[in-house]
Amino acid sequence: MATITYPTLMEIDFGAIKVLGDALKRNGISRPLICTDKGIMATDIFDKVRSVLPNDVTPTVFDGTPGNPTEVAVREALAMYRENDCDGIISLGGGSSIDLGKAVALLATHDGPIDDWSAFNGGRDRIGATPPNIAIPTTAGTGSEVGGGSIIVTEDGRKIVIGSPHLMPKMAICDPELTLGLPKLLTAATGMDAMAHCIEAYLTPIVNPPAAAIGLDGLERVVTYLKRAVDDGSDREARWHMMMAASEGCMAFAKGLGCVHSMSHALGADPELRLHHGTLNAVVMPTVLRFNADHVGDKFTRLRGAMGLAAKADIADWITDFNAALELPKNLAEMGVTDAMIPDLAIHCMSDPCHFANPVQPTVDQYEQMFADAMAGG
Amino acid sequence: MATITYPTLMEIDFGAIKVLGDALKRNGISRPLICTDKGIMATDIFDKVRSVLPNDVTPTVFDGTPGNPTEVAVREALAMYRENDCDGIISLGGGSSIDLGKAVALLATHDGPIDDWSAFNGGRDRIGATPPNIAIPTTAGTGSEVGGGSIIVTEDGRKIVIGSPHLMPKMAICDPELTLGLPKLLTAATGMDAMAHCIEAYLTPIVNPPAAAIGLDGLERVVTYLKRAVDDGSDREARWHMMMAASEGCMAFAKGLGCVHSMSHALGADPELRLHHGTLNAVVMPTVLRFNADHVGDKFTRLRGAMGLAAKADIADWITDFNAALELPKNLAEMGVTDAMIPDLAIHCMSDPCHFANPVQPTVDQYEQMFADAMAGG
Repeated sequence: MATITYPTLMEIDFGAIKVLGDALKRNGISRPLICTDKGIMATDIFDKVRSVLPNDVTPTVFDGTPGNPTEVAVREALAMYRENDCDGIISLGGGSSIDLGKAVALLATHDGPIDDWSAFNGGRDRIGATPPNIAIPTTAGTGSEVGGGSIIVTEDGRKIVIGSPHLMPKMAICDPELTLGLPKLLTAATGMDAMAHCIEAYLTPIVNPPAAAIGLDGLERVVTYLKRAVDDGSDREARWHMMMAASEGCMAFAKGLGCVHSMSHALGADPELRLHHGTLNAVVMPTVLRFNADHVGDKFTRLRGAMGLAAKADIADWITDFNAALELPKNLAEMGVTDAMIPDLAIHCMSDPCHFANPVQPTVDQYEQMFADAMAGG
Repeated sequence: MATITYPTLMEIDFGAIKVLGDALKRNGISRPLICTDKGIMATDIFDKVRSVLPNDVTPTVFDGTPGNPTEVAVREALAMYRENDCDGIISLGGGSSIDLGKAVALLATHDGPIDDWSAFNGGRDRIGATPPNIAIPTTAGTGSEVGGGSIIVTEDGRKIVIGSPHLMPKMAICDPELTLGLPKLLTAATGMDAMAHCIEAYLTPIVNPPAAAIGLDGLERVVTYLKRAVDDGSDREARWHMMMAASEGCMAFAKGLGCVHSMSHALGADPELRLHHGTLNAVVMPTVLRFNADHVGDKFTRLRGAMGLAAKADIADWITDFNAALELPKNLAEMGVTDAMIPDLAIHCMSDPCHFANPVQPTVDQYEQMFADAMAGG
């Protein structure tokens, strides 16, 4: 079993879930709130977790995490946390459950509307201690298990970013066993989320060589193993490396992200369409790479190296083809996005923290053009 | 300025030293013990640090750090710490001063002989909270500023390894400005320490992909910039990258190290010869790489890639040539080591923690052979 201590203590391997009891004890948790969703409850994953809980631990379960976690859901979970006198959190699921768990931890010790604590409103410098949180990812994509960020849809429908070292899980238990049953489409879409993290983190001009190196390593793993994991969900080697790549993607974006994420945050805020974050990242990535191409020096050369592409290969075209091979949507139109939504989407992007870390900051007009391009397929 | 938060909060850039006042305040330090050595006191580095200390901070200075820090020196510094009611530490210097600072922090809150707390004696699991420690490296090699390890020579002359997350500096202030005046030979020898960290960390079989990726990135920097920094000490770009490479080397060895280090720890324990750690690493590295060659799978291919070497290049030979270009000693005999010392050196290696992380564990006989090879120049 590999023990990795940055930025969060991580245990990764098949069967890693067995350390959960120890992890709860070390963090003084005896009455955890398990934050998860109905999809997880319908599989055997919840039973697997339940079976390794020590006898003296009494869990409360919140299984109402929506696809894009909302402030409303966070407050429902928080009410259960308080009602049952919980003393910590187990976040079990994909990025949505883990992000929701972090937001519950935040509001357990911080009053007011959640937007008061957003990165855009300077929350990072004001967020203090929160209850301990153990993250157990069941997808390989988000990396949220090793990060201090959480993306929440506010009561007025905006998708905001909250970030603080105090939101970082005390421990990430990364057990690829839990991803063996993940359906093809979710494997593909979450895996492309990891790829987007690795690529965007590498391209942002913020200087952080260790994070950049980790991003390139994660990217190589996604290119090598994602198609294998999609083609054969029981490919244990591929599942291990995708789990690692997902965490590496998040470690990498300690550097920052870019317009792939500002755009997919805007798109993901829509309460009707409920679009999947990883899928959105996959679909908008070629468009954003073309927009950034002239502003990244020779970084595309390094990306091509990590991806094993030829010296002159077009990375954007390669990703379009890879998306097709993974049977992901070809464009935003296919996902239900309409031209009429574009002006509001473009405005949403301008206050997203990821906007500011892109190699160059697009204008509202340029965002509108990028959305239009992604509507047609990049 | 790049802010890097794993594993330690690090600020790196020319002029980074200006954040020291804030760092002391954030960590509640008003009466620091500055752990340094007479070499630093003879340069303008101490004045630079003194000039950025806030007016309400009263430092005590211990400048008696030996080349290989001893338990005796640690206890002298600890006496000053207590006498002056200090509430934290500033470790200012190369690896010796930083390691000594960590050991003072340890003994400020832990009783008994320092060997009781060694890694070999299970100290890692028993070491608790220590006073805050701000590390300011003045060489680019050790990486100790971002690590939780400390190497101390005990009162009975053994070189022991102590390690704990509680020994990790609260912050590393990496200001390449402080390395501009580092003499050629020390630049070369400390730089080769960083190279040894990157290579040994990558080769150890312990699984930690982010650490491995950081090690390869650091190795590329050393190969690209060390000779430049040696040839022209005022080459600011080279100094920045060597400072980064040194920290990366230490982040990488979160994975573990190997026989380069078990051998150089044994050699560095000699109280008469007072051999330089980085120089020893440089001199024994070719020998250990030859010993390990058949036990590392295809990892040499990746090393060659990071080093920019041809596909069939002999890495051990390349390092021998690089040592010569840096005007480092050709072999251990040239450093004053004698054949008569070899049996004891080999035995010393067997209980060094780095011995256990090598791709394969040498026998005492094999260590004797490696020392004999390194006597003659690999």
